[in-house]
Amino acid sequence: MSASVETWAEQIRAGEVRAVSRAITAIEDRDARAEDLLRRLFPNTGKSFVIGVTGAPGTGKSTLVDRLAGGYRGQGNHVGIIAVDPTSPYTGGAILGDRIRMQGHASDPGIFIRSMATRGFLGGLARTTGDVALVLDAAGNEFVLIETVGVGQDEVDIVRLADCTLVLLVPGMGDDVQNMKAGLMEIADIFVLNKSDRDGANRLEAELEAMLQLAPERDGWKPEIVRTVATENKGVDELTGAIARYRERFGKSPEHEAREIEHWRTRLLALAGEAVLRRAVSGADGEAALNRLAQEVASRGKDPYAAVRELLARADVAEKRA
Amino acid sequence: MSASVETWAEQIRAGEVRAVSRAITAIEDRDARAEDLLRRLFPNTGKSFVIGVTGAPGTGKSTLVDRLAGGYRGQGNHVGIIAVDPTSPYTGGAILGDRIRMQGHASDPGIFIRSMATRGFLGGLARTTGDVALVLDAAGNEFVLIETVGVGQDEVDIVRLADCTLVLLVPGMGDDVQNMKAGLMEIADIFVLNKSDRDGANRLEAELEAMLQLAPERDGWKPEIVRTVATENKGVDELTGAIARYRERFGKSPEHEAREIEHWRTRLLALAGEAVLRRAVSGADGEAALNRLAQEVASRGKDPYAAVRELLARADVAEKRA
Repeated sequence: MSASVETWAEQIRAGEVRAVSRAITAIEDRDARAEDLLRRLFPNTGKSFVIGVTGAPGTGKSTLVDRLAGGYRGQGNHVGIIAVDPTSPYTGGAILGDRIRMQGHASDPGIFIRSMATRGFLGGLARTTGDVALVLDAAGNEFVLIETVGVGQDEVDIVRLADCTLVLLVPGMGDDVQNMKAGLMEIADIFVLNKSDRDGANRLEAELEAMLQLAPERDGWKPEIVRTVATENKGVDELTGAIARYRERFGKSPEHEAREIEHWRTRLLALAGEAVLRRAVSGADGEAALNRLAQEVASRGKDPYAAVRELLARADVAEKRA
Repeated sequence: MSASVETWAEQIRAGEVRAVSRAITAIEDRDARAEDLLRRLFPNTGKSFVIGVTGAPGTGKSTLVDRLAGGYRGQGNHVGIIAVDPTSPYTGGAILGDRIRMQGHASDPGIFIRSMATRGFLGGLARTTGDVALVLDAAGNEFVLIETVGVGQDEVDIVRLADCTLVLLVPGMGDDVQNMKAGLMEIADIFVLNKSDRDGANRLEAELEAMLQLAPERDGWKPEIVRTVATENKGVDELTGAIARYRERFGKSPEHEAREIEHWRTRLLALAGEAVLRRAVSGADGEAALNRLAQEVASRGKDPYAAVRELLARADVAEKRA
């Protein structure tokens, strides 16, 4: 078994698309071989530059990601794209195939596109996305683009995966987006004013500038603001330029290292939690025990904390058996 | 200590607002007394009817929640409101006090409003929100309304807390919202067409009806569609009527019981994971050990799975000490 996993890892390191696809499916399905595979691939990771692209529904994230990918591809790079935006057209299109809106790149083997479904509880989307990014990294993609809608804790966790985070804004999206800006403000390394040919672009940029004046500088970096019209491929070169400047500034800095460590702290905790839960419900009677406890709590026959203690006792026993 | 926690629990059971507020703060701060408190309150819970209200930014969730609360209050009920929408005006207003937009109810002690900040990793927002709902339940609120923006895994987890989930839609919100509908479809018990005085309300309702025809019935329930103009308090009585019919149908049904058990399954697993993580980083050297492991992984000196094994070994040792 492990010999075949090593062959699989070799194929991924060689960038074979089918092997990469199988790995992502294994990660999503929580296939037992995924961990073995990721352990083998891990030393080959850390080379991709990961770019997070986030913003409210309707800001044109998918189109921008498409154009960015095209730009990097034009420079001879390999590009991996992960769409974890539940409102993304890829997600809806997962049934019909991922490449519906990426028609320009559908036949280009240098661009790999995968949309992630929102899966059940154990592990969460951020963990899965992180593992998929590792696979795309090991497969030799110089750039990995992660698209996510910019709201919710899970999305913020996903954005933490990125080396550089782009926050998209669009002129004239009203009050709620104004409110959202505050939260997005903190995670933006670069602001993208997309659909900037619309009315209100100047006002939005002025508002952003005013907010940035008030915001504390993060490690001496003031986020650049770049205007784009992604549908017309306008401003994309300027954007890759701004990303390159950010990377130049932070690529090997102590600030970036601190961010990486913080990222792995969070991720190790998530992995550890998941491992314990897997132990707790392992074995033929594991699921039955969990169901019984859930039933007792639902009927108020037992409090949740007593139930958790029983569950953890099971996990400890399972570990001793292992 | 435990005597004072019992006094605190007594005050909550009596519905004392300050005691409830303190409890929520303790839950958010992961104060050690929160678990003791919740264990004492747990037998007093299970009486509230919990309504989840979700939808994209701009659909008018806050206003609708405000009007629903007013409606239930008018029938003599006590109402608790939890706003966990990161785009919600309450969240932005947390600095200025929670009640900014709830001016009609600011002086009414029968309505308790609390906005939840998006907090750090351990436990997650869904767990915290669940515990806060238990406190509001124990405090004697006949209805608990949870407002959340309808995207992201965390939001879906939060919605799973509810006995009945309302999904808000608004005419004319474009492509991305069309895509979002698919995900929201599955969690909706009732659809609310808010801002239904706008152009396109008939078309949206027809589209929804068409989708509902195609969707498999859930436990024999076809979600009702209710039109509202929350800002003008229109359709709110119809909505409380639809909620009452849903409750009548599912309140004590085997389907509802199955949902409750499923809910507690998820929640017990989350609590168990959190308990283990707390153990793993407990003690004076716990944080240091986690930082060291994160650093080793970030520099590719160790793979994440090896690091997790070390972390869990720490948790086991911590447990034996306890």
